[in-house]
Amino acid sequence: MRWAVVLAGGSGTRFWPLSTPENPKQLLPLAGSVSTAEESIDRLTGLVPRERILVVTGAALAAQIQQRLNLPGANILVEPRAASTAPALIWATSEAQRRDPEAEVLSLHADWAVGDAAAFRRTADTALLTARQHQCLVTVGMVPSRPETGYGYIVPGAPLADGVRMVARFSEKPDAATALDLMAAGALWNSGLFAWSAELLLAEVEAHTPEVAPQLPALKAGNVGEFFRGVTPISIDVGLLERSGSVAVVSGAFAWDDIGTWQALTRVRAKDPNGNVVVGNASLHESEDCIVWTDRDTVVLSGVQDLIVVQANGRILVMPSERASSMKQLLDALPPEVRDVHS
Amino acid sequence: MRWAVVLAGGSGTRFWPLSTPENPKQLLPLAGSVSTAEESIDRLTGLVPRERILVVTGAALAAQIQQRLNLPGANILVEPRAASTAPALIWATSEAQRRDPEAEVLSLHADWAVGDAAAFRRTADTALLTARQHQCLVTVGMVPSRPETGYGYIVPGAPLADGVRMVARFSEKPDAATALDLMAAGALWNSGLFAWSAELLLAEVEAHTPEVAPQLPALKAGNVGEFFRGVTPISIDVGLLERSGSVAVVSGAFAWDDIGTWQALTRVRAKDPNGNVVVGNASLHESEDCIVWTDRDTVVLSGVQDLIVVQANGRILVMPSERASSMKQLLDALPPEVRDVHS
Repeated sequence: MRWAVVLAGGSGTRFWPLSTPENPKQLLPLAGSVSTAEESIDRLTGLVPRERILVVTGAALAAQIQQRLNLPGANILVEPRAASTAPALIWATSEAQRRDPEAEVLSLHADWAVGDAAAFRRTADTALLTARQHQCLVTVGMVPSRPETGYGYIVPGAPLADGVRMVARFSEKPDAATALDLMAAGALWNSGLFAWSAELLLAEVEAHTPEVAPQLPALKAGNVGEFFRGVTPISIDVGLLERSGSVAVVSGAFAWDDIGTWQALTRVRAKDPNGNVVVGNASLHESEDCIVWTDRDTVVLSGVQDLIVVQANGRILVMPSERASSMKQLLDALPPEVRDVHS
Repeated sequence: MRWAVVLAGGSGTRFWPLSTPENPKQLLPLAGSVSTAEESIDRLTGLVPRERILVVTGAALAAQIQQRLNLPGANILVEPRAASTAPALIWATSEAQRRDPEAEVLSLHADWAVGDAAAFRRTADTALLTARQHQCLVTVGMVPSRPETGYGYIVPGAPLADGVRMVARFSEKPDAATALDLMAAGALWNSGLFAWSAELLLAEVEAHTPEVAPQLPALKAGNVGEFFRGVTPISIDVGLLERSGSVAVVSGAFAWDDIGTWQALTRVRAKDPNGNVVVGNASLHESEDCIVWTDRDTVVLSGVQDLIVVQANGRILVMPSERASSMKQLLDALPPEVRDVHS
């Protein structure tokens, strides 16, 4: 049967001061009126039933995740430690297989914005069918909309079926010129939307992932703590997909965004005629291309351009849009009593 | 005896959203830790005793003014209507004379920042002595520190004493080139710090101010309401000083500012090494020449220049410093529910 594994860990700081350890990015209504985590679960309706959706997260968020996503407690998998994506996905896949030996797994992240849920489901369906029919690991490659340098790219190779090809190679975070070349050559963004049968994934890990494979017996014995203590943190891309020869890529031709920075709101939310994105109460006067998020006070902008203005959790942030990707440097420069925010 | 008349009416909007009808500019701690109205009263210590300080204000503010300034209730003069400065000053001077036929009056405004209180008192003392010795109206002209186009200028004429001359003429709100010429020629800012004997002022009004003079009998009869109903609103500058031939000017060589806009805070408050003025909790990162005022949330600026950022009364205002003098246009453009703020 089909299962979904949703990665919902992490407490990133790129949406400071809105995101907090208690209310991280995936629990924020960044792309709509509900959180991206809730949207991610809702988007699976008709594709995977809720009782077969497993969510991987950390101990600090588990209770809130379960409540917000309204899933059975047994479907919330609490990582003993964060160890990148390979251990999390291998554990969750193994858990699906324990409950269903024939498990076919779709894996995704809880912090995505997707423009067309029906297209997402059609593509995910194709990925799951491809994984079964061709006995391979499948990654969904998103058709790029810009030469983004922060993503990995997939270069497709030999055709398998309509819109499905084998992966020729991966290109991780290219420079701007290379990103343009990759786009022109038909390379796709490596999104993290994957499909595989549990049986094949575990066999491939055994063959290609020495950082994790020695701990598979602990996992089969149900000793999750020992598994996580023994593994070396590594991503599924580096630790398996780039090493395996059995990876197919399905093209995903729908708007997809991992909402990496405040700037991403201009892609996933509607803009006013002056290019501004506003969430909360605000009046914008002779201002263009700004991003405003306010939880409480009414924001008034006059005569400004390309600014991010956020009020949340007792902080007011004002910075140029171009600094959205440098949030870490800003937070490193702030005194702890200013930087540390809580919901 | 010496009396002081402090004009403390008005509920200007140039410090929106901090200033409100209940808490207008003169009651805000714009230049220091207490309001400019309180500073104005404190600055008179040793020059005029508190029991001889009369404060003119409107009905909406009277109770708060009395409490904040800790003055006898009889010293708060509540204008029945706002009618510019001439009726207010004539009424208050007449009231001083009613209590003290020999009254010598110093008049000032409640919303000034003064850099050197001792110099202010020495200059005010000179103004009061000049008014008595030379039987004239006296205005204190501030030595300009910039070619300000928003002020009136006084061109001094024949010398009367050291630092004291007759007024040759007034020049109201010159253009920038004229302001530079006026500065170069030794003209002084017309501040609104005046001195006169009650007897002379009322005689001069009788002679030169037909907008008010016909109502003087009502005032003498104690009918303030009739006086204000009958007068034509006019400033003391236009209605009397520019018409009288008996006006002397005393040079005031101390920092003086009427704190006309948010931008004025850069003149009356200390700046950090990057030229920023901050009131309230804030962390500024790679930001220059900004003005931050926050009543509650901690403001974080990163990579911005020449911005005004204010949080007060449920509003957050962000605009370039150069727009500080265009507050009226902004407020006219805002929806009433955003514009109307209350403390």
